[in-house]
Amino acid sequence: MSSSNRGVVYMGPGKVEVQGIDFPKLVDPRGRTAEHGVILRVVSTNICGSDQHMVRGRTTAPVGLVLGHEITGEVIEKGRDVETLQVGDIVSVPFNVACGRCRTCKEQHTGVCLSVNPSRAGGAYGYVDMGGWVGGQAQYVMVPYADFNLLRFPDRAQAMEKIRDLTCLSDILPTGYHGAVTAGVGPGSTVYIAGAGPVGLAAAASARLLGAACVIIGDVNPVRLEHPRQLGYQTVDLSKDATLAEQVAQILGTPEVDCAVDAVGFEARGHGHEGAQHEAPATVLNSLMEITRAAGAIGIPGLYVTDDPGAVDEAAKRGSLSVRLGLGWAKSHSFFTGQTPVMKYNRALMQAILWDRIKIADTVGVEVISLDDAPKGYEAFDHGAPRKYVLDPHSLLRKAA
Amino acid sequence: MSSSNRGVVYMGPGKVEVQGIDFPKLVDPRGRTAEHGVILRVVSTNICGSDQHMVRGRTTAPVGLVLGHEITGEVIEKGRDVETLQVGDIVSVPFNVACGRCRTCKEQHTGVCLSVNPSRAGGAYGYVDMGGWVGGQAQYVMVPYADFNLLRFPDRAQAMEKIRDLTCLSDILPTGYHGAVTAGVGPGSTVYIAGAGPVGLAAAASARLLGAACVIIGDVNPVRLEHPRQLGYQTVDLSKDATLAEQVAQILGTPEVDCAVDAVGFEARGHGHEGAQHEAPATVLNSLMEITRAAGAIGIPGLYVTDDPGAVDEAAKRGSLSVRLGLGWAKSHSFFTGQTPVMKYNRALMQAILWDRIKIADTVGVEVISLDDAPKGYEAFDHGAPRKYVLDPHSLLRKAA
Amino acid sequence: MSSSNRGVVYMGPGKVEVQGIDFPKLVDPRGRTAEHGVILRVVSTNICGSDQHMVRGRTTAPVGLVLGHEITGEVIEKGRDVETLQVGDIVSVPFNVACGRCRTCKEQHTGVCLSVNPSRAGGAYGYVDMGGWVGGQAQYVMVPYADFNLLRFPDRAQAMEKIRDLTCLSDILPTGYHGAVTAGVGPGSTVYIAGAGPVGLAAAASARLLGAACVIIGDVNPVRLEHPRQLGYQTVDLSKDATLAEQVAQILGTPEVDCAVDAVGFEARGHGHEGAQHEAPATVLNSLMEITRAAGAIGIPGLYVTDDPGAVDEAAKRGSLSVRLGLGWAKSHSFFTGQTPVMKYNRALMQAILWDRIKIADTVGVEVISLDDAPKGYEAFDHGAPRKYVLDPHSLLRKAA
Amino acid sequence: MSSSNRGVVYMGPGKVEVQGIDFPKLVDPRGRTAEHGVILRVVSTNICGSDQHMVRGRTTAPVGLVLGHEITGEVIEKGRDVETLQVGDIVSVPFNVACGRCRTCKEQHTGVCLSVNPSRAGGAYGYVDMGGWVGGQAQYVMVPYADFNLLRFPDRAQAMEKIRDLTCLSDILPTGYHGAVTAGVGPGSTVYIAGAGPVGLAAAASARLLGAACVIIGDVNPVRLEHPRQLGYQTVDLSKDATLAEQVAQILGTPEVDCAVDAVGFEARGHGHEGAQHEAPATVLNSLMEITRAAGAIGIPGLYVTDDPGAVDEAAKRGSLSVRLGLGWAKSHSFFTGQTPVMKYNRALMQAILWDRIKIADTVGVEVISLDDAPKGYEAFDHGAPRKYVLDPHSLLRKAA
Repeated sequence: MSSSNRGVVYMGPGKVEVQGIDFPKLVDPRGRTAEHGVILRVVSTNICGSDQHMVRGRTTAPVGLVLGHEITGEVIEKGRDVETLQVGDIVSVPFNVACGRCRTCKEQHTGVCLSVNPSRAGGAYGYVDMGGWVGGQAQYVMVPYADFNLLRFPDRAQAMEKIRDLTCLSDILPTGYHGAVTAGVGPGSTVYIAGAGPVGLAAAASARLLGAACVIIGDVNPVRLEHPRQLGYQTVDLSKDATLAEQVAQILGTPEVDCAVDAVGFEARGHGHEGAQHEAPATVLNSLMEITRAAGAIGIPGLYVTDDPGAVDEAAKRGSLSVRLGLGWAKSHSFFTGQTPVMKYNRALMQAILWDRIKIADTVGVEVISLDDAPKGYEAFDHGAPRKYVLDPHSLLRKAA
Repeated sequence: MSSSNRGVVYMGPGKVEVQGIDFPKLVDPRGRTAEHGVILRVVSTNICGSDQHMVRGRTTAPVGLVLGHEITGEVIEKGRDVETLQVGDIVSVPFNVACGRCRTCKEQHTGVCLSVNPSRAGGAYGYVDMGGWVGGQAQYVMVPYADFNLLRFPDRAQAMEKIRDLTCLSDILPTGYHGAVTAGVGPGSTVYIAGAGPVGLAAAASARLLGAACVIIGDVNPVRLEHPRQLGYQTVDLSKDATLAEQVAQILGTPEVDCAVDAVGFEARGHGHEGAQHEAPATVLNSLMEITRAAGAIGIPGLYVTDDPGAVDEAAKRGSLSVRLGLGWAKSHSFFTGQTPVMKYNRALMQAILWDRIKIADTVGVEVISLDDAPKGYEAFDHGAPRKYVLDPHSLLRKAA
Repeated sequence: MSSSNRGVVYMGPGKVEVQGIDFPKLVDPRGRTAEHGVILRVVSTNICGSDQHMVRGRTTAPVGLVLGHEITGEVIEKGRDVETLQVGDIVSVPFNVACGRCRTCKEQHTGVCLSVNPSRAGGAYGYVDMGGWVGGQAQYVMVPYADFNLLRFPDRAQAMEKIRDLTCLSDILPTGYHGAVTAGVGPGSTVYIAGAGPVGLAAAASARLLGAACVIIGDVNPVRLEHPRQLGYQTVDLSKDATLAEQVAQILGTPEVDCAVDAVGFEARGHGHEGAQHEAPATVLNSLMEITRAAGAIGIPGLYVTDDPGAVDEAAKRGSLSVRLGLGWAKSHSFFTGQTPVMKYNRALMQAILWDRIKIADTVGVEVISLDDAPKGYEAFDHGAPRKYVLDPHSLLRKAA
Repeated sequence: MSSSNRGVVYMGPGKVEVQGIDFPKLVDPRGRTAEHGVILRVVSTNICGSDQHMVRGRTTAPVGLVLGHEITGEVIEKGRDVETLQVGDIVSVPFNVACGRCRTCKEQHTGVCLSVNPSRAGGAYGYVDMGGWVGGQAQYVMVPYADFNLLRFPDRAQAMEKIRDLTCLSDILPTGYHGAVTAGVGPGSTVYIAGAGPVGLAAAASARLLGAACVIIGDVNPVRLEHPRQLGYQTVDLSKDATLAEQVAQILGTPEVDCAVDAVGFEARGHGHEGAQHEAPATVLNSLMEITRAAGAIGIPGLYVTDDPGAVDEAAKRGSLSVRLGLGWAKSHSFFTGQTPVMKYNRALMQAILWDRIKIADTVGVEVISLDDAPKGYEAFDHGAPRKYVLDPHSLLRKAA
């Protein structure tokens, strides 16, 4: 074990660099010893759409922040109080940092842990305002409350064999799944998913796993619809002038779906030939109310923020959006928001992967790149590449493949 | 049985009259025979806050509309296909008209029945855009799909004895209860209810029945808070300059509650000394996100409309409100909207009334008046009288008292 | 339309005959007009394992009973009060007769309707003690409360194309599904299903649709395990001397599953080389407690009866079984029993079939035979043929194929 | 802090003594350091009916076992890894020992923790076969995984004022509540509770808190029914010759309830004049199926054991009971068993106590006695005294009173 470390660092709007960073210690961001933690050698770590929000400069993320909250790793050192893990275990790290000891954690709402972030409910690795936990787009990272947080893969060899899928357990798959579950997806459902990025594709794969009859994915960018169409999903091209409801009706014979997922969030763009060029914050949500059946539910895994300095208008800068609440109310809709509580789902989804029930890597377009290529990955992803970039800091994935 | 009938008729903004109206027939609004229906002699029928929306001229309700959707009655005639009811039965009528045969009805979402209203999901008696069913603020009214819709009281004498409470089963009690249930209220919950009108008070009584530890009611009008305070509820006076969060903290020792209910809806006014004078559509909802704990839920029984010609701005006229979605998202809130599916709850709430577990009439301030006094009742209610006016078209309640 | 009719009639233990029977009328078993009903031309009607209980003489079914509760048909006549169906519609009939107007029906517990059977909760077609409704293994049959009970297929041609699958919606598929759902099956679950008959196979297909990671089917008859093994299910041969727990451990690496389904019921046989020869009523249930994880659930769609004149001992004759309740209690198990409320599930399962998400006909081994061959079907099924016999009274399926 | 300790010790069938015992250390039963634990000064500790099973000699409990799993205490020492608790905190100890790190704990099933007991799922203090954790009927006790397990009372003075109620949070109140919740009790429910011992009374108080319309308590010992009758509960005297169903019908007008709770368990006695004299293991459960409505649920907090050397017959000795499963199946009943997961409920119930929504001490008949009087308490309780004995090892309750 070396004591050097390298990681992806935010250097200001539009700029990330791979730099030498501190080797992690069993210490929390407030400087307290964290004997409940482990040090991981990072096996794989993914670039997330929400990292882009920071990198685009739409947040107050400070220069120097080490990025990365989608982490899979190998335990190389453990604190004195860690009981259930062994050095050598391969584990998935939920992106939410959670203590396992507060009220919300005990109730399985680990996305809004009350202890790990002094400024608000909920913590995450490598993310602005989420508690100051060092990110994991690096060679090594510290994970606190390891017994509680980590999901151990039962078999090391099997894990490495399916690592391209298992790397999706830290965030992207559970996040898409949470969207589908809260939208009420079950066997026989018809589902509309707004957004063909990785979250939307993960929601689609989740809806299929949950037994949905028909899964429709919509996007303003027709290029992003090609891959899901090849995988057998229905698609709606929102750059066309036909409305969403009209395109849904062509597929289903009715302009409404049972369940809808907003996998876009606050950086939504308008629909139609014109609209797709401009940011239109509440477009997605309002369109979902239009096409969701009465008594239906809308899952909102797409990120909405409390403050958005780069927003198109004053209201949006404060996180306020012009929502057609009257429409939702008339249809008795329910709405589910927030960070996904990954631990509620990751064990079951791991089983689904290990027993070949879901091909999530292929669905979201996993592409493995080296740590050094991270800046290129960020750039390509920002330009809309239909890829989920997975960093491979120790070349373990290339060896496994 | 006489074949004459009198009812409360909307005569234009600010004006209702009691007039002679047609005696009901077993025919639906589309002119089809309704052998599944019954004719009721109306025992009691309540004025509802949502009636006020029409009478204030904030809807497109046509002149001549017979008002009234909160109805308790006695079966005096039944269609050929009615099997489970007998002439003489005393029954509560859910305000939602529901067919019992469509998908949403079969799934217990009777608030959005797909069959009884050609223009949208959901029907109601005496209400604009809700299917054209004649209202029940009258001596007699027709109820379709009677076997499905009606809740029969087990004993006639017992029913008349508790009629002031039982009259609340048609709408106000289930609506408050739906707000509390969807907000996640259960034993030990701390609950904030926005609005001390009848829906808010019914939500408060429901929260207590559900076992809530502490129920706090807030209103911009301090006069409306006196009665709930006397009943042992905590109150928050929003005309004060102390913020809602500050006042909640004074009561609970923390500025957040477990569960919140919006019992105000789209005609909300601002908070504080200044704000309380002006309509401020999203104030309530935004303030609820502020004071609801992370992972909490917000029940929204208060009415939000798709179109509001009298609204303060263009967006609100289309039913769009400036919602701080980013705040709710950061706290992983969920939101539940829509007309209450009364049938899901009314049987259980009837049992609670019959076994003296809830005193809803006293809580919402039931005041029995004659049918002829309906216009006075509308006027007094519009001026904020802390009363739930119950019309007594056949003087049966006064005889029972 | 002809007014003649032919059906499968129980003629005493071990004996069924196809005979001329009355053409159905819109009249219920108590002689009351049933204008809420329809007459169906039977498109397909399946032989069920529970029919065998009667035919084997293990019930008090009277000679002359017309059998058959798994019915798909075409509406050829409708009562005056039927609103949502048209002559020519192709519909699936839930095997439970339900009124849609009583408390349990309104709560979606249509398996225990309180109105359609004077002797106990719950009704069915062609079944002893279930209300006297004439069975549907016939050319024509009457279905009461048609608007409530029937599931209309959206497109006639599409329906006939998939009729071998859709015929499973009346009982076998929802029954297996109910077992899986109540056992808590979801994405990633490991599931054990006791019994490789049609109910067990339908439970297995349902578990897969629900996203289960690994589905294991066990049976005392190894021949019945061949087909599911070919479909990719794991199997446990209970005629072997290795225990159930040992065989589960070989598959999963642990001797316990997340969820278990009893698809056998009261006519269970013992396990192992010796046991499999003898009836051993509580064997299945007790073995399920052994291999279900702590906090797991056990779904029991397999039929247990209140009276069983043919049982092996006095207790079993009264429907009492020697259950290892202490074992279940130590593991915090929950248990779900009863007739499946088909209507809760059939619409969603229809969608799953129409969108090719489940191949239920192939899984349960549908074999279409003529009405005249029904007695042969009963006999072959009784001898353990791994087939689901579907009668084709008007040769419509053979024409469709 | 003294380093001496005294506790209640099982000395063989029918015999308990208060003896000097070891002062607790931060070490678990397997000898491993437990820096996650705390040492509590015991504020109050209750005698439980399940302690009686051991003391009566119906288990394999070894002589020398320190009894007691219902514990409230003050933190006097904490392990290095304890983060959320301070010395001086007053805390309630859930009777289940749980690690907070295994699968079942993470899913809130803390009653069947997989880590704290090598021999089976689930641990408890001072109980045979439950992991070897030293009991808390003592002056001092060690509690492991303290951050996870302990419920901190918000205010010390308030806690001591309500200590007679709060002492019920460690077991008896959540256990009764779990019975009511799993039986489906909610607003308006009619509920039957078998057994007027402390668990039954706690279930009754819980049902009332949950909003039940009518709560009926039955017992074979009419003396035990007097107290609940005075508290306004309905009662059924099972020593009478009128059947349970008949007595229920007299109260409700129908022989069935919505929900039923078995608060008796495996040492049940028969009903009626004769039956009440003899142990009749499955009597309670079978009678509950008779009087629970179709589609109803039965909560079974009463203890059933896997082995019962003192049972009346061979089957019962193995924990097998002759259950009328056929009856339950015909009525679509569901059944919920197992140790209560206290942590799922204790926070909410604490709130209900602190806000005066439940008077559990009065309901279950709390009687505070000294530690030295524990043997007398055991004896009196064994003779059926309608009391819940609470030991007061440091005379803190007498001082508080």
